[in-house]
Amino acid sequence: MQTLTFWYEFASTYSYPAAMRIDDLAAAAGVLVRWQPILLGPIFREQGWETSPFNVYPAKGAYMWRDLARICAEEGLAFSRPVVFPQNGLKAARIALIGQGTWGPAFARAVYRAEFASCLQIDDEDVLRPILRSLDADPDAILLEATSSRIKLALRDATSQAAELGIFGAPSFTASDGELFWGNDRLEQAIRYVANQPG
Amino acid sequence: MQTLTFWYEFASTYSYPAAMRIDDLAAAAGVLVRWQPILLGPIFREQGWETSPFNVYPAKGAYMWRDLARICAEEGLAFSRPVVFPQNGLKAARIALIGQGTWGPAFARAVYRAEFASCLQIDDEDVLRPILRSLDADPDAILLEATSSRIKLALRDATSQAAELGIFGAPSFTASDGELFWGNDRLEQAIRYVANQPG
Repeated sequence: MQTLTFWYEFASTYSYPAAMRIDDLAAAAGVLVRWQPILLGPIFREQGWETSPFNVYPAKGAYMWRDLARICAEEGLAFSRPVVFPQNGLKAARIALIGQGTWGPAFARAVYRAEFASCLQIDDEDVLRPILRSLDADPDAILLEATSSRIKLALRDATSQAAELGIFGAPSFTASDGELFWGNDRLEQAIRYVANQPG
Repeated sequence: MQTLTFWYEFASTYSYPAAMRIDDLAAAAGVLVRWQPILLGPIFREQGWETSPFNVYPAKGAYMWRDLARICAEEGLAFSRPVVFPQNGLKAARIALIGQGTWGPAFARAVYRAEFASCLQIDDEDVLRPILRSLDADPDAILLEATSSRIKLALRDATSQAAELGIFGAPSFTASDGELFWGNDRLEQAIRYVANQPG
């Protein structure tokens, strides 16, 4: 089976609908998904932004919230604008890396729901612990492992690799040949591309 | 019939596929289209950009050219990356305003084809004159009228009105109630929205 890499950042608004949609769409097309958390902070700082471009450019930000609400309504996804934006997704990203290949995707979806549907703070361990428990993962062990050099380095490496692939925002999707697709709007096209790659 | 306003800028890359698609899609949905040229320069300068954000942010720009080529291929539109980007669309925008309601849309489509399919310079009168002649419009009279205070002011007013509506890029689409949609990707959604508005 062909694989699509899904580059996501927990603070990214449009990563929320992409995360909720990708597994079903990919399965229907016979495509495997590799969920890859990254941090956009270092990538944005390279562009000269100290915060989300949706905060740097208020007209674009106002539009994004309206557009996201419309997308979620069309997709039947609960949505509630977070009080704090962007949120700090560092801890959640490190945890998702630990669960990569096992409970990572389910963890990511639950974190996105907490952030964009339930108005919770995703850097709060009291939010993350129940999610981990619901996935039969051990919160104490995982929160400890999330502070390890191995995991810190793996997240830094993934973010560098994303930048090298030309990724400048999230969600992004890449095929094995490096073809890049950006945005929830391109999810279907990315899956079609990968499904049609020669095996 | 309900009306959708199509805010376009001749230098805008994604306005090209939108311009080529909008009239057929709107007609099929029973929606009227008001073609409204604007200038993004003043709007971008408000955000601190002295050129296109696709030049300000090279990774985003590289992606845009690839994405635009893929979109044009999918839509069956000829595409050739312009040598100069962004082009100066001031003269073309003023001319399109003169033809608003008559030959304006056909003129705009021809200008976009010249720019993004034929690699021509759209600020060149030798490019604009044959287009006007093909529409049975008088190039001399129109190029003169394009320098009039009335037309200059009308373009400035349209650009200010766009900014007041929250427009920060092109193509954009607005419904009569002010609902805003941004980008070629949102064209179908914008038409659906307007078609479902109460008469």
